[in-house]
Amino acid sequence: MRLHGYHRSTAAWRVRIALGLKGLSAEPVAVHLRNGEQRSEAFLRLNPQGLVPALELDDGIVLTQSLAICEYLEEIHPDPPLLPRDPVGRARVRAFSLAIAADIHPVQNLKVLNRLRALGHGEEQVNAWARTVIAEGLAACQALLQGERAGPFCFGDQPGLADICLVPQLFNARRFGVDLTPLPRLLAAEAACLTLPAFAAAAPERQPDSE
Amino acid sequence: MRLHGYHRSTAAWRVRIALGLKGLSAEPVAVHLRNGEQRSEAFLRLNPQGLVPALELDDGIVLTQSLAICEYLEEIHPDPPLLPRDPVGRARVRAFSLAIAADIHPVQNLKVLNRLRALGHGEEQVNAWARTVIAEGLAACQALLQGERAGPFCFGDQPGLADICLVPQLFNARRFGVDLTPLPRLLAAEAACLTLPAFAAAAPERQPDSE
Repeated sequence: MRLHGYHRSTAAWRVRIALGLKGLSAEPVAVHLRNGEQRSEAFLRLNPQGLVPALELDDGIVLTQSLAICEYLEEIHPDPPLLPRDPVGRARVRAFSLAIAADIHPVQNLKVLNRLRALGHGEEQVNAWARTVIAEGLAACQALLQGERAGPFCFGDQPGLADICLVPQLFNARRFGVDLTPLPRLLAAEAACLTLPAFAAAAPERQPDSE
Repeated sequence: MRLHGYHRSTAAWRVRIALGLKGLSAEPVAVHLRNGEQRSEAFLRLNPQGLVPALELDDGIVLTQSLAICEYLEEIHPDPPLLPRDPVGRARVRAFSLAIAADIHPVQNLKVLNRLRALGHGEEQVNAWARTVIAEGLAACQALLQGERAGPFCFGDQPGLADICLVPQLFNARRFGVDLTPLPRLLAAEAACLTLPAFAAAAPERQPDSE
């Protein structure tokens, strides 16, 4: 498998963690988002959305969208699981994951921030937009965990899809200067994750394209 | 079950279609987004994200996020299926669905458009933002269907999760004046869907809160 990604893309990072947790590996292929490589003809043939990640399987089939890829990895390689077994538990983990992957990240990604710049907003306003979106979104995520099992991970004593979404989003939160002190439950889950090799190895600064 | 929604919320609409395709029903509870009811204390207790839909199960458990709810319905009531059986097919349908539910809808929903208004943009610029996001996003969705089976639905001869996401998004596209002529493949899938009772009954104008 080849994982087309970018070291700082939080969506590609999710897939790196999932692969690591599953004990799978994929050859990394860097798509330099800052240079616009995601809009090249070659890359658009792989993924018409012009987004990373894209997971190229050994038979040439290309899978896109980080959550769809994680669900695929879960189906072909169920152990260790990224989702609980019971339908309600699965729905709650997926909802938390979507609260990040659909309601925070796409509203603060490079594409949207560039749209704001094109409307004439300076870096201060652009960063304030990202900061607000992330702070409000993560506060809701922490509230979604009320009543869930104690941890240390988002949903109990094993890391899963929710943690895979959380850790990269907290990195973005810090990048934009979000105050994380009101989010102790999320920080505790992150701390538990960062002790695990799969999370450590997936970090942006550990990727070959980070230099 | 009670479905907390709003007639024009495309996310709630997706769940209405899924329930209909599965032959399930839920009592509709209107959350008037235009009046800010989603930010009321009572609603935030149901869903800390302050978003519809929220599906309240008979035992009081509340599920949120339309795609997580659809996956739940798929798991507790597998027939008729909303996803294919093979992992690659499932990944492709999920990716198409996320291309709408994560990369289009959250970037053009009421919350984001209100953020733009708060930055001083008038209706013309706000609508142009929504129009661009939807047009670019749907063009990518149509490209994602290249090489897929002929139709008439997004992925073959049965409606599924992709169609559930597509039909409400096309409604929003028209609301914002998106030119749909470059998207014949998507329009053909929509036309096939609209012949089905589950899609017809889920339309905004058929909901009790539409008056």
